[in-house]
Amino acid sequence: MNKLKIKEILKTGEPGAFIKISGWVRTRRGSKNVNFIALNDGSTIHNLQVVADTGKFEELLLREINTGAALTVEGTLTESKGSGQNVELMAEKIELLGKADPEKYPIQPKKHTLEFLRENAHLRFRTNTFGAVFRIRHAMAFAIHKYFNDKGFYYLHTPIVTASDAEGAGQMFRVTTLDAVKPPLTEEGKPDYSKDFFGRPTNLTVSGQLEGELGALALGEIYTFGPTFRAENSNTTRHLAEFWMIEPEMAFYDLKDNMDLAEEFLKYLISYALEHCSDDLNFLASRLQQEEKNKPQDQRSMDLVEKLEFVLNSDFVRITYTEAIDILKNSKPYKKNKFQFPVDWGVDLQSEHERYLVEKHFKCPVILTDYPKNIKAFYMKQNDDDKTVRAMDVLFPQIGEIIGGSQREENLEKLESRMKEMDIPTEEMWWYLDTRRFGTVVHSGFGLGFERFILFVTGMGNIRDVIAFPRTPKNAEF
Amino acid sequence: MNKLKIKEILKTGEPGAFIKISGWVRTRRGSKNVNFIALNDGSTIHNLQVVADTGKFEELLLREINTGAALTVEGTLTESKGSGQNVELMAEKIELLGKADPEKYPIQPKKHTLEFLRENAHLRFRTNTFGAVFRIRHAMAFAIHKYFNDKGFYYLHTPIVTASDAEGAGQMFRVTTLDAVKPPLTEEGKPDYSKDFFGRPTNLTVSGQLEGELGALALGEIYTFGPTFRAENSNTTRHLAEFWMIEPEMAFYDLKDNMDLAEEFLKYLISYALEHCSDDLNFLASRLQQEEKNKPQDQRSMDLVEKLEFVLNSDFVRITYTEAIDILKNSKPYKKNKFQFPVDWGVDLQSEHERYLVEKHFKCPVILTDYPKNIKAFYMKQNDDDKTVRAMDVLFPQIGEIIGGSQREENLEKLESRMKEMDIPTEEMWWYLDTRRFGTVVHSGFGLGFERFILFVTGMGNIRDVIAFPRTPKNAEF
Repeated sequence: MNKLKIKEILKTGEPGAFIKISGWVRTRRGSKNVNFIALNDGSTIHNLQVVADTGKFEELLLREINTGAALTVEGTLTESKGSGQNVELMAEKIELLGKADPEKYPIQPKKHTLEFLRENAHLRFRTNTFGAVFRIRHAMAFAIHKYFNDKGFYYLHTPIVTASDAEGAGQMFRVTTLDAVKPPLTEEGKPDYSKDFFGRPTNLTVSGQLEGELGALALGEIYTFGPTFRAENSNTTRHLAEFWMIEPEMAFYDLKDNMDLAEEFLKYLISYALEHCSDDLNFLASRLQQEEKNKPQDQRSMDLVEKLEFVLNSDFVRITYTEAIDILKNSKPYKKNKFQFPVDWGVDLQSEHERYLVEKHFKCPVILTDYPKNIKAFYMKQNDDDKTVRAMDVLFPQIGEIIGGSQREENLEKLESRMKEMDIPTEEMWWYLDTRRFGTVVHSGFGLGFERFILFVTGMGNIRDVIAFPRTPKNAEF
Repeated sequence: MNKLKIKEILKTGEPGAFIKISGWVRTRRGSKNVNFIALNDGSTIHNLQVVADTGKFEELLLREINTGAALTVEGTLTESKGSGQNVELMAEKIELLGKADPEKYPIQPKKHTLEFLRENAHLRFRTNTFGAVFRIRHAMAFAIHKYFNDKGFYYLHTPIVTASDAEGAGQMFRVTTLDAVKPPLTEEGKPDYSKDFFGRPTNLTVSGQLEGELGALALGEIYTFGPTFRAENSNTTRHLAEFWMIEPEMAFYDLKDNMDLAEEFLKYLISYALEHCSDDLNFLASRLQQEEKNKPQDQRSMDLVEKLEFVLNSDFVRITYTEAIDILKNSKPYKKNKFQFPVDWGVDLQSEHERYLVEKHFKCPVILTDYPKNIKAFYMKQNDDDKTVRAMDVLFPQIGEIIGGSQREENLEKLESRMKEMDIPTEEMWWYLDTRRFGTVVHSGFGLGFERFILFVTGMGNIRDVIAFPRTPKNAEF
């Protein structure tokens, strides 16, 4: 059973065929003799032009065919001259399924601000822009599963509610069923979590990596793709409190294998988008051009499709953090004091530095490796210099860091001593350490923030516009 | 870049080829002259037999090749006579990557109870049973995405943290960053949620359906696949506090279309499992047979693979709830007072009733429709009889209800009046009602509990054994 969709009609519809199709009205315009209805069913950015002879239909019916109304139309496909499509539909019968009062329906055929559409996130899927964004988001999610499945990786659902707070990746949301006003207390006056649902304090996960490692050290190559959470009070265009992450983790991969995988993976996704989403990408590309018309020439971004093709055809440059610091120290903006943040060996790079390396110096994606151990997580493989770890960050134009990963420390003694240095409770993490006790192997992995990647592919500027119902400080509407 | 895997070696490895492969030791047995090492890398249930000439290797090295140790082996493939495989590996070089002390490593080559393995969930992926379960779980997740993608459905990530508690599907987990002991209070002494992270009370989602409808009523056909939560204190073999659900939602689908989709979908998944997971299914089938040997003949379940083929080849019977009640009232167990729970028009059916219909009466999967409105949710399409709604439950052998769904009420007035009857706040749900205000259409959807389905496909008996790290009352380990 497959429902006929406008996407297929526009692609393979034969003039002369009698069809029945349902969708929502994007616009209706008309003259005394004929009305043209642009009908969309969500399957494609393109509308099917429905031609309605005013003589054939009640005036009252036609008057109610407003933007947002739902119709079922029966009729004959004919070759189209004017509509920009191969075929159009000569209506024989029109059924009005649901009206949309033009005085009340918010999504009228005019320019709406993105902020207005965010407040109407329940209806914004009905616009060209958000239809395109969410179709591309779907295609990228599917491509991720297909890429890993084809390579023999296994998809692992790591837990969302977790008692582990060892990663220290940021502030966390508490998950509880204790009374919100008068929780049971211990003798010391602390919440008595033994009475909570899970019998201990629990939070929303910040990463599935640690559990992912458990899977990889048995199944070989695994990946996660699930929601992760940060309770950070960051109201920016790049942060969400709830976002989706992809975290592959691979036994027997060293840092080079990890970099090779990350580069191949990103290029696969981009090439999938170019192949499967060209209509939506072209629409978003012209949208972006339109939006940037008022910017000075040198501040405009590259054309969206060109940008994707450029990344696809680049060899990612691979250098160490130490080499990057040298390049930055010898750069014009550094010498002219144009960087806002300091450049010193040992400090974390900021977006301005990452973008300088990618956009100005190398003019292509860059993978930085071997970061100072003090700015990276406890589980990263320690280098012999005792100063750096086998970390890797993949830096993209416009976005900065799009992937962060590392080879993992597989040596039990080194891992334990680093955890103690960083005050990470080794007893609670017995299960993680067990993988180093029993059959430990070289392994690596990385994380890709899904929404950051969708920003890159769609050219959208605000992360709230690439997830259906964004969760941000003071905002959990819908 | 693709790493060589044991799965491929066993399938296409050519005798004479020199290879290098890594994995974990399942067993080593040996004589004075030769050792046989069963090596597994997680890619398949089958092991590669490594043959190590004792003359070629240090005795100390061979002695440390214990169950659970990790090795890299280089050598030549040769035709195998004894190992049950086409090829085996004559070792030239063995590198011991990680030891596994047989005194300490919990996963020894002997029969472990499932309960013991649950306590060692971080290592249980390394057993045959759990390797098979989690490879099948992966295959089913991929098949779900492939099925919907091929049909033109769009994957929608609905929110995990939600302020909506309208579904009333059960107890919920609170998500908060307020102080656990002394939260800020309002003048009335209630928690001041305006100071909480999202500025309002928030919970973990129980279903993505309502948001899914918003997507379907713009993009046409969507599906969700994400974690959902119930804070119910149910310590059973069928309940989890955190589980994954698949919820397709389709514009322009009536109840019949919905049933057709559900049946086609389930059969697609089963046929995918039979085609892609035969090694793992066969292993689990014999495991089940072994486990049931001690049961009386009439209590043993059908062979796992036969059961899957049987469902695949059955036409699902479709009857109304009212017809089902009649059948049950005329049944032997009813007349002999063998049912534990009452059978009366208006009460919800219990597992014993569902299983009677499926296993005894029809001997095939059953779809029940048109349930009494009082035992179903507010959003279901009301029938003209004013007593029933266009609900459908798909009932499977052994499992009972595996899918629950309905046609949705698309009429604004009917929906609002039902919500008021059921004390559901219509103001808070303005966004949901907007879809009925503007361009409303006939639409339908259903939910499949992923773990319940994996129970069915793998033949496992406890839902804790088909999710990597189960969350249940008083348990959030790992």
